[in-house]
Amino acid sequence: MPNVKITRRLHFSAAHRLARPDWSEARNQRTFGDCANPNWHGHNYELDVTVSGPPDPGSGYVMDLKELKALVEREVVADLDHRNLNLDVPWLEGVLPSTENLVMRIWDRLAPHVPPPAALDKLVLWETPRHWVEYSGPDG
Amino acid sequence: MPNVKITRRLHFSAAHRLARPDWSEARNQRTFGDCANPNWHGHNYELDVTVSGPPDPGSGYVMDLKELKALVEREVVADLDHRNLNLDVPWLEGVLPSTENLVMRIWDRLAPHVPPPAALDKLVLWETPRHWVEYSGPDG
Amino acid sequence: MPNVKITRRLHFSAAHRLARPDWSEARNQRTFGDCANPNWHGHNYELDVTVSGPPDPGSGYVMDLKELKALVEREVVADLDHRNLNLDVPWLEGVLPSTENLVMRIWDRLAPHVPPPAALDKLVLWETPRHWVEYSGPDG
Amino acid sequence: MPNVKITRRLHFSAAHRLARPDWSEARNQRTFGDCANPNWHGHNYELDVTVSGPPDPGSGYVMDLKELKALVEREVVADLDHRNLNLDVPWLEGVLPSTENLVMRIWDRLAPHVPPPAALDKLVLWETPRHWVEYSGPDG
Amino acid sequence: MPNVKITRRLHFSAAHRLARPDWSEARNQRTFGDCANPNWHGHNYELDVTVSGPPDPGSGYVMDLKELKALVEREVVADLDHRNLNLDVPWLEGVLPSTENLVMRIWDRLAPHVPPPAALDKLVLWETPRHWVEYSGPDG
Amino acid sequence: MPNVKITRRLHFSAAHRLARPDWSEARNQRTFGDCANPNWHGHNYELDVTVSGPPDPGSGYVMDLKELKALVEREVVADLDHRNLNLDVPWLEGVLPSTENLVMRIWDRLAPHVPPPAALDKLVLWETPRHWVEYSGPDG
Repeated sequence: MPNVKITRRLHFSAAHRLARPDWSEARNQRTFGDCANPNWHGHNYELDVTVSGPPDPGSGYVMDLKELKALVEREVVADLDHRNLNLDVPWLEGVLPSTENLVMRIWDRLAPHVPPPAALDKLVLWETPRHWVEYSGPDG
Repeated sequence: MPNVKITRRLHFSAAHRLARPDWSEARNQRTFGDCANPNWHGHNYELDVTVSGPPDPGSGYVMDLKELKALVEREVVADLDHRNLNLDVPWLEGVLPSTENLVMRIWDRLAPHVPPPAALDKLVLWETPRHWVEYSGPDG
Repeated sequence: MPNVKITRRLHFSAAHRLARPDWSEARNQRTFGDCANPNWHGHNYELDVTVSGPPDPGSGYVMDLKELKALVEREVVADLDHRNLNLDVPWLEGVLPSTENLVMRIWDRLAPHVPPPAALDKLVLWETPRHWVEYSGPDG
Repeated sequence: MPNVKITRRLHFSAAHRLARPDWSEARNQRTFGDCANPNWHGHNYELDVTVSGPPDPGSGYVMDLKELKALVEREVVADLDHRNLNLDVPWLEGVLPSTENLVMRIWDRLAPHVPPPAALDKLVLWETPRHWVEYSGPDG
Repeated sequence: MPNVKITRRLHFSAAHRLARPDWSEARNQRTFGDCANPNWHGHNYELDVTVSGPPDPGSGYVMDLKELKALVEREVVADLDHRNLNLDVPWLEGVLPSTENLVMRIWDRLAPHVPPPAALDKLVLWETPRHWVEYSGPDG
Repeated sequence: MPNVKITRRLHFSAAHRLARPDWSEARNQRTFGDCANPNWHGHNYELDVTVSGPPDPGSGYVMDLKELKALVEREVVADLDHRNLNLDVPWLEGVLPSTENLVMRIWDRLAPHVPPPAALDKLVLWETPRHWVEYSGPDG
């Protein structure tokens, strides 16, 4: 069976701020502009999770979409939705929540849980409808 | 000349929290659920500003869209984008930033500045692509 | 308090067929074209439910969106999603499921349950992204 | 039978220029900015045509969508698609093709052809996804 | 000439059901949930067809889009639109119409007809705006 | 640090015509159909610019999005927006402005300006929401 890729889109709304505690406020403002606003700002994020693998000869599924959705909700959305990415998320402690850093941490949360022979193939994380990041893992 | 309506969509990203200072934290949580998260959350808002009036016989315009955009950016977006709606905006002081309350305050900011014979006709404020509010003014 | 309108979008996927049992197959084909295919076809429907009313002075809400979503899911989506509109829905018995007829029946399901002073204001039912119907009730 | 509104979206791509032959080039540039570029520019337009009326007791249709689509293609899209709005369209001769002027002329093309008891209710003409005009006729 | 990829999106609306005739109804329900509803359900599918190749030095085209559209309409859309994927399509006989299985069969219909030096590069098949599959052929 | 891809979408509106000066008008009409209309037509183009590289350990950025946007506006959008692609753009002189040819020229404008270790990875150019091209460079 050849590989097919399936994707499920999920969303979460969160606050964040781009600023490093080890930098001065002036340097944070210079580097991150209004993304460094001390009182936070926020976004509606969309997360596209792509899994690749051969369709199962019985079910015709690469992976059951209900299981994929449940996995992403449990490992990612439940922790991020209506939360502050700098303050509220144990697995983002010490991480500057740029979209780039965020997508790499989400990969680490999801990759171990995709049941073989399927495998996590790609994540696309939309911060706005006109700006997004894409990640295919440390070897991608 | 009959009336035509023109609309310009603008966006801003902001943090907020639904919670009343005159209510207990327990009551806020009960009423607003995870929208009351003490560390804030946020959204990408889209704002559709509709102006109604007769097209000018010379320019064919109800209102110059560049002027409309500049007006909304100056009176609304400059104050809300990458800001905290509970903390950072003088004209939202004391206002619980539900989408309903927010759209009414935005109306008050914009209506006096639309040059007659055009007039502000409607605002649509999107908090997510699946939830929005609409307001046509106190007499609408 | 002036009126504000809030809208929540929900979706369901369903099969249907346009054909009247009291008409011949030839007349059904002539009237409805490939919408009369005897083996059904189907759509992803989007339903925009708009409620109008004064924001509550306490919560700032016209109506709690979680309650609105739960109401539409219970009264409409639970019966229509992944169903056949001609065969599976008790409250559509004897109804030719054109989009027009469908939106009027959905109104009847929802209007009695919106808590005053809010009231159901408008339904928009999308059959495809390029074709939709709009209904504001029998007096709308 | 109460009224239901049905809408069909169609598209066309056209070139145009905002400039009056009875004004100097300098005045055109001052008024219309880069929309006055002498060598034209262009847009993908989307046109939403809304018809209102009681659903037919037999077909359940306010108006057959295939007929509505054919009407708009014959009266509007065939003349505008892949054309220059200033030069190529007999029924736009002498009309400055602002979106406002364009939507009023499209109304005049369509309104007489909608079969009663249905009637043309509203046109929405999108010049970009972030700018559109709306027209409900000379008495709307 | 380097390779460029061009994509054309087409759509079709169809009914289907996920259930294997060689499995019991109970097992089908357990595996496929409400996708196994015996009376069918349906979707608006979007199909993105990507062709890759060097632009022709004369026309500047990888492939004439009108020809690509005509090819997909003839080989795929004409058979699937307003049809039942389990019952009405000769080239889907015996195929469980999961999105994964469907996209592989569509590939087999299209790949032999793309005129060299262009070649079919990728198919994306959207079952809903939040769930899609992607296929690059048996060697992709 | 592994590679992450970031994308910024920008837009421009332009007129163009597909026709070769070294071909007869008849041959241009035969090859390009109504895209050869002598009086031009036009589109709203969307351009997705993807840059790939390791996130900077300090800023967490592959590339500052404000810089990326400024680069694309300076090198591409300023020359194309509200312009005629056949007549107004020095770096398109002698280029038949098919979407394929256009995306290759845009690549040449942008690639030299992306600051290492980031590099231009992919361009997607949308001529309409249902037709787009993709280019990954002469070695892509």
